[in-house]
Amino acid sequence: MFSKEEYINRRNSLKSNFNSGVLLFLGNDESPINFFDNTYHFRQDSSFLYYFGINAPKLAAIIDVDKDKIIVFGDEMSIDELVWMGRQQTLEDKAHQSGVTQVEPASKLSSYLKNVNHSEIHYLPPYRAENKMKIAAMLSLPIDSIKEHASHTLIKAVVAQRSIKSAMELVELDLASSTSADMHLLAMQMAKPGMKESEIAAALQQVAQKDGGNLAYPVILTVDGQILHNHYHGNILKEGDLVLNDSGAESSMGYAGDLTRTFPAGKKFSTKQNELYSLVLDSYQKAVKALRPGIKYLDIHYTACLTLAEGLKDLGLMKGNMQEAVLAGAHALFFQCGTGHMMGLDVHDMEDLGEQFVGYTDQQKKNTTQFGLKSLRLGKELETGYVLTVEPGLYFIPELIDQWQAANKFSDFIDYGKVADYRDFGGIRVEDDYVITQDSYRKLGKDLAISIKDIEAIRATAY
Amino acid sequence: MFSKEEYINRRNSLKSNFNSGVLLFLGNDESPINFFDNTYHFRQDSSFLYYFGINAPKLAAIIDVDKDKIIVFGDEMSIDELVWMGRQQTLEDKAHQSGVTQVEPASKLSSYLKNVNHSEIHYLPPYRAENKMKIAAMLSLPIDSIKEHASHTLIKAVVAQRSIKSAMELVELDLASSTSADMHLLAMQMAKPGMKESEIAAALQQVAQKDGGNLAYPVILTVDGQILHNHYHGNILKEGDLVLNDSGAESSMGYAGDLTRTFPAGKKFSTKQNELYSLVLDSYQKAVKALRPGIKYLDIHYTACLTLAEGLKDLGLMKGNMQEAVLAGAHALFFQCGTGHMMGLDVHDMEDLGEQFVGYTDQQKKNTTQFGLKSLRLGKELETGYVLTVEPGLYFIPELIDQWQAANKFSDFIDYGKVADYRDFGGIRVEDDYVITQDSYRKLGKDLAISIKDIEAIRATAY
Repeated sequence: MFSKEEYINRRNSLKSNFNSGVLLFLGNDESPINFFDNTYHFRQDSSFLYYFGINAPKLAAIIDVDKDKIIVFGDEMSIDELVWMGRQQTLEDKAHQSGVTQVEPASKLSSYLKNVNHSEIHYLPPYRAENKMKIAAMLSLPIDSIKEHASHTLIKAVVAQRSIKSAMELVELDLASSTSADMHLLAMQMAKPGMKESEIAAALQQVAQKDGGNLAYPVILTVDGQILHNHYHGNILKEGDLVLNDSGAESSMGYAGDLTRTFPAGKKFSTKQNELYSLVLDSYQKAVKALRPGIKYLDIHYTACLTLAEGLKDLGLMKGNMQEAVLAGAHALFFQCGTGHMMGLDVHDMEDLGEQFVGYTDQQKKNTTQFGLKSLRLGKELETGYVLTVEPGLYFIPELIDQWQAANKFSDFIDYGKVADYRDFGGIRVEDDYVITQDSYRKLGKDLAISIKDIEAIRATAY
Repeated sequence: MFSKEEYINRRNSLKSNFNSGVLLFLGNDESPINFFDNTYHFRQDSSFLYYFGINAPKLAAIIDVDKDKIIVFGDEMSIDELVWMGRQQTLEDKAHQSGVTQVEPASKLSSYLKNVNHSEIHYLPPYRAENKMKIAAMLSLPIDSIKEHASHTLIKAVVAQRSIKSAMELVELDLASSTSADMHLLAMQMAKPGMKESEIAAALQQVAQKDGGNLAYPVILTVDGQILHNHYHGNILKEGDLVLNDSGAESSMGYAGDLTRTFPAGKKFSTKQNELYSLVLDSYQKAVKALRPGIKYLDIHYTACLTLAEGLKDLGLMKGNMQEAVLAGAHALFFQCGTGHMMGLDVHDMEDLGEQFVGYTDQQKKNTTQFGLKSLRLGKELETGYVLTVEPGLYFIPELIDQWQAANKFSDFIDYGKVADYRDFGGIRVEDDYVITQDSYRKLGKDLAISIKDIEAIRATAY
């Protein structure tokens, strides 16, 4: 946990956005795997962690603006539970550590809320079914209306606050990125032709967990890098493959790291791989250099896309005016997703609160229709203290190529004949984590090989 | 997956229990960690796996006895999903592999059920909140009445069928136990004073996952073995500690292994540790030797408890008539839980269906009041084909000792003065997995050191 004062300040700052009402925060419950008592690794809700710091299930809390009260609702352990779970710090002690002096039994929450005008109860949109059920029951709302009744005022206040990372949070984020770098170095050192993807993925999880942390998200470790959310680890690495590793650690306090490297399964990049990797790296570097407070991340994204498109034109896969091509979205055949996203207590920070609120503004709406742009989670102006990823890539997805070619889509900009030569190329992505500083940016965590030369030097001694 | 015929036979066998009605099976959805799209490792519901074999989220299935129809409800991937997830086998192909020829869109399930008399719809009690919500919506039931409306006829039929493991299932269970044995051997080989528990726990997870399997349940790896469900891995091993490792692998088809070993953090057991370990091992061996079809597991449990109690009497911790002491439950100060449980697709097999149905019978009700017995998950007569664990132990829980002593509980049977000498001893458990054969039993999986001599031999070369 951070210091008591940190949590008190966070809550006071949040409260100052409200003249009245009750702010309701639900912590997470345990998540059952295949029966009630066999549960996944417990993960507290990030906003609950941020404001109350208590990493335990079955809790809720309120900030009552009208009565100027802060209460944590939850039950102390029974002697029976103590036998099974061991002596632990009491809930009251845990609450005190975050500066909350009032703890009430879990059963009291419902009656507390009954005495409040329901239109004055502000809650965040729940993403877990258990919490949807709880809110529906406590506020007498139909379950399918829970999301629409979530408080935009509260969402906006929380997003504004959690977006700016404090010095203490940056220590955690540096740590998570450094552990993530350890994971990636290990992958580059251990991979060799004949090895199964799952063996490397399991080793990465071990690095993330050995100091009491965890994975920040399921490992993508694949020779099919063109499959963007690929959690299959059943392939055998072979000479000539590219290995795409998108994995990151979560620090023991819950902060995420999120890195991607792509490296040859053998010792060296092929000529074709070298060409496309260099292009992705160029796009990444140009995007990073443009980071600063005041620039829109949408412009960072355009910089990355334009660099990719110009490079693809040089290689003959695209043609025509690349600025026009990128504005039209033609490059999205090769780069289907966004250049980056906010990162913090969540790897896609605050994604539960809504992408429009986190990555855009009332004035700058997210483009939800253009293929490519609709996957850009962050578009708005950057501020000092934002933490975000930069992760351009190139992906050759046979099914998408077939679909676009059949529709003759963007044929002014795309040379489908040339694209056919790359149909089975796979995918490349590089990704690092950055904090926006007073006038520029700083990379989080320890350094990790990213140039072809540095990666091939590691691969040379791998096997 | 098993063969198509296996799934067809399983469903036919199940259907033969019903003259009419619709049997409804809900598969599991993805479980969100900290936002909707960041999900835990997907685990299909075990009964869904057993009857339909399809390991994918967002599915449901019905066996319509009246219309003699079997339908899987779920959606094929859209092109957008294909871009993110890669080309996969179609749902229709997956369904065909388990002999189901009719696949309908997910949205059709609700209207299908609208045309069935709701009292004729049989479903299993859901343990995931998402499925509670779905059943409540489809059958117009209040969420808190879902459990009581679950079909006892269906539960009993499923339990009867899943309890008897087929030869094919035993191959998987042997595999899971063998991988679990690999995990335990590694722990005994790598542990040394100064090492953090989390480092060993992470290494075990890697063994479980490297061939595409997983952990069957969260690893218990602790120097505080007296804390029965201890998932904290933050302690540093030190000379003189006992390390209790309760961990098991799940095969890629979903079958569980569940083993426990307790070994010295140093190279040798101390005299006191040696005495108590020998006693637990004796209890384990006597319980195992009694396994056979026709014996009640409750009697196996009594055998284990009585052996422990007699040994504790020899050491001076208990006194009086040990048969009376065990019947009264006095031994439960040292052995608070049950000697074993069913195992299969779930580590506590079918625990979601209810312990009374799985481990007991209409004639033999579970004892839900006596401390110790109320934690015995399996009490009924064993049958050929049952797979179960044998896992006696001794646990010195300071809070429980204090509570009992303050109440002067069972002071005719317990020498609290002597117990005080063991107050900080910790805990010991040994556990293996067994199948009940035609006239006896067979241990599942490869052999794993369990005697003091064999364990000390491994520890001698550990560091």
